[in-house]
Amino acid sequence: MEKNSQSQADARAARDRRQRVQSASIGMLVLKELAALGGRATLTALAAHLGENPAKVHRYLASLMEESFVTQDQGTQQYCLGPQCISIGLAAMRIADPIRLSEPSLVRLRESLEVTCFIAVMGNRGPTIMRFEEPGLPVTVNVRAGSVMSMLWSATGRLFLALLDESRVRKLAEEELSHAPANLRTQLDATDPIGRLQRDVRAAGFATVKDTNLKGISAVAAPLFDASGHLCATLTALGATGGFDASIDGPIAKALRKEAEAISAALGYVPKQADALSGCV
Amino acid sequence: MEKNSQSQADARAARDRRQRVQSASIGMLVLKELAALGGRATLTALAAHLGENPAKVHRYLASLMEESFVTQDQGTQQYCLGPQCISIGLAAMRIADPIRLSEPSLVRLRESLEVTCFIAVMGNRGPTIMRFEEPGLPVTVNVRAGSVMSMLWSATGRLFLALLDESRVRKLAEEELSHAPANLRTQLDATDPIGRLQRDVRAAGFATVKDTNLKGISAVAAPLFDASGHLCATLTALGATGGFDASIDGPIAKALRKEAEAISAALGYVPKQADALSGCV
Repeated sequence: MEKNSQSQADARAARDRRQRVQSASIGMLVLKELAALGGRATLTALAAHLGENPAKVHRYLASLMEESFVTQDQGTQQYCLGPQCISIGLAAMRIADPIRLSEPSLVRLRESLEVTCFIAVMGNRGPTIMRFEEPGLPVTVNVRAGSVMSMLWSATGRLFLALLDESRVRKLAEEELSHAPANLRTQLDATDPIGRLQRDVRAAGFATVKDTNLKGISAVAAPLFDASGHLCATLTALGATGGFDASIDGPIAKALRKEAEAISAALGYVPKQADALSGCV
Repeated sequence: MEKNSQSQADARAARDRRQRVQSASIGMLVLKELAALGGRATLTALAAHLGENPAKVHRYLASLMEESFVTQDQGTQQYCLGPQCISIGLAAMRIADPIRLSEPSLVRLRESLEVTCFIAVMGNRGPTIMRFEEPGLPVTVNVRAGSVMSMLWSATGRLFLALLDESRVRKLAEEELSHAPANLRTQLDATDPIGRLQRDVRAAGFATVKDTNLKGISAVAAPLFDASGHLCATLTALGATGGFDASIDGPIAKALRKEAEAISAALGYVPKQADALSGCV
């Protein structure tokens, strides 16, 4: 009997804990929905979108207002995302590090595709490899963490050249071009070598190379964008040209693109189309 | 008896609702504390700062992770503010409108100090009044919503000149100076009229004028900063020089500064000192 009531009490306590945590989730859902509605909405609209009754949503809003996550507009009576949302957003952006966030992706790509892959950022000397993962039987390449890549003949460099609108990037590419041997120069467009590369990569949103930078090596590179929509790093996979599908619709390019999109989302990037929509609200 | 059990059930339901909403608040507090700790922390550190037991905090973190408000770093096992925080932060920033947020402040200033007050932003022609509030017995001034203020002889203009590091602002001031009559020019420093104004206002973080722009009118202006630390608008109060205390420590300046700081905070502005501290974490 005593044991029974003890187990009943335990069950009650467990249910209680579950409900509490569920309630924390509802608070989060209210914030998410408010963001999805453009950052502000009336109680009626918000409750309708959440599929909850307005009285219940109102209680959660009161608690969110107490912590400054939500404010109420005096004029329109709409509920708005408040200053505390900005604070945690800025704190989250400060620690959103593409290199840290890419590590699980690099491991997954190495394991599932057995390719060499790395993340690179734009350093002061050029695109620089920050993390490097190799499969059990690596292809022999002379790049590693810390290596600076070619702006014009590597997939990584071409991505920065096309998507980073900075004079220093263009300058690095022009310098490299002026010192390049004839056999490399002939791989590029004769009249507008840099402009042509930029246009092609921009159109594809992606860069691939075959035997340009390293003999017998192919590579594909996908862009990582941050919360402000800027290219902050690239995710690149490479392999021996014979056994490496560098085509833009191939399985390697697809897997890379998927991982890159997930990392960009974790960095707070919202693709252009979604941006335009939320701007209409 | 039946009535009694009904009222007990009511009491239980009310307590249940309170606890649920309390739980939503705890979820918010976990996010706030994580932001205060620089955006990431171990469970132990987070629980210690919250003064809660780690098992309880862990349950809330699990629920925050489910909604992508928190992620866990694979390497360090630290809990980090996640992509959903960036999303709601960006949504909150998009709707953080200094004009909308200033309205209650303008009403409070008008009512408590009986002064004319307005909010101005930097338009393409110069500082432009966006909202204007007058007390019951207004001083007669020829400015209203839509009016463009002087860059050099109004408190509002001087604040933009000092705190907005833009070439077009400097250009507008130089143009105004070149067309100004001698009696206005003599009010400014003879050797470095614009530079001197900028240095003085920057040192004070505040601008005041007496009879410079409008005869018999004094004004004080306080800056409004946005989440990225830029001057986005000014809050200005003005009155007849005789009955208006334009001193930097006077009650009008103090009230204005307090309201301006509250609006900046609502815009997500974090004063420099706090920024430096959080950067150390």
